[in-house]
Amino acid sequence: MASHADTTPLRKLLVEELRDLYNGEKQLTKALPKLARNATSDQLRDLLENHLEETEQQISRLEDAFEMLGEKPRGKHCDGIAGIVEEGNAMLQEDFDGAVLDAAIIAGAQRAEHYEIAAYGTAMAWAKVLGLKDLAELLDQTLEEEKAADEKLSALAESTINRQAASESMAAAKR
Amino acid sequence: MASHADTTPLRKLLVEELRDLYNGEKQLTKALPKLARNATSDQLRDLLENHLEETEQQISRLEDAFEMLGEKPRGKHCDGIAGIVEEGNAMLQEDFDGAVLDAAIIAGAQRAEHYEIAAYGTAMAWAKVLGLKDLAELLDQTLEEEKAADEKLSALAESTINRQAASESMAAAKR
Repeated sequence: MASHADTTPLRKLLVEELRDLYNGEKQLTKALPKLARNATSDQLRDLLENHLEETEQQISRLEDAFEMLGEKPRGKHCDGIAGIVEEGNAMLQEDFDGAVLDAAIIAGAQRAEHYEIAAYGTAMAWAKVLGLKDLAELLDQTLEEEKAADEKLSALAESTINRQAASESMAAAKR
Repeated sequence: MASHADTTPLRKLLVEELRDLYNGEKQLTKALPKLARNATSDQLRDLLENHLEETEQQISRLEDAFEMLGEKPRGKHCDGIAGIVEEGNAMLQEDFDGAVLDAAIIAGAQRAEHYEIAAYGTAMAWAKVLGLKDLAELLDQTLEEEKAADEKLSALAESTINRQAASESMAAAKR
């Protein structure tokens, strides 16, 4: 039974989804420090640095997931995250600063979070329907972290950064 | 006052965000018909075709948004959606079929929805804080459509397609 299941198409699709995420998370371990270095708000920098630590745990959780499936941990180039990271890099080249730059950094980071929310949500649903309960629970842990990270970014933007960005913008226009 | 506001950094960032979305939506008007053509579930095909119509409305809503800002409607290549579309195309090249293919199509479409949820959410928040209430409301209409499209895809996957994909997979493994 188990050996049959190893070769089923949905299971194959699930493994591909995990490979996409494995590579995507690894790309983010390089992109997040760059965003954190450019952030001017201490709160934003802390948030990005904490999420970098979470990302490293998520990578080791994906390695556990591959082991559960009897697969070697192997990535497959994640074009979606690559595109989002590329946009983030292009944005850092522009001449935004202060809270406006922070608002732009948050926008980029939330795109990455949302990509991962979609992908982990999908992988978890497939694990469930394949009867892989432990794997589904493992993926759900990461899914909840991604949702929480996204909400923290929204909360920071809405509580302070966006308003600062608007008022710095007004001040800049008056100069 | 209005002429000052035209040149503020946050407003500039907002216009860039809309340009990214304008191009992203246009990419999706090409990608969605391809996904719909490959879908085997009638419900999934209908859902994708309906979302294509919504996407066309969203594009004309973005044109209204540019007009509100006194800007020409102009796109800027959206690397994030491009990457997601590329992944979708690569997936269509693989040898999945039936409900497993449908599950894969849903996974791709939800990544695009989530990208847009993040981007419209950001643009709406910036419009609000810049005091552009009508623009914020316009963007919110699209944001709600994107969230609804994502939820419909999840509901379809969870109610039927994922289970079918798992049982077709089992049947394939037994042959």
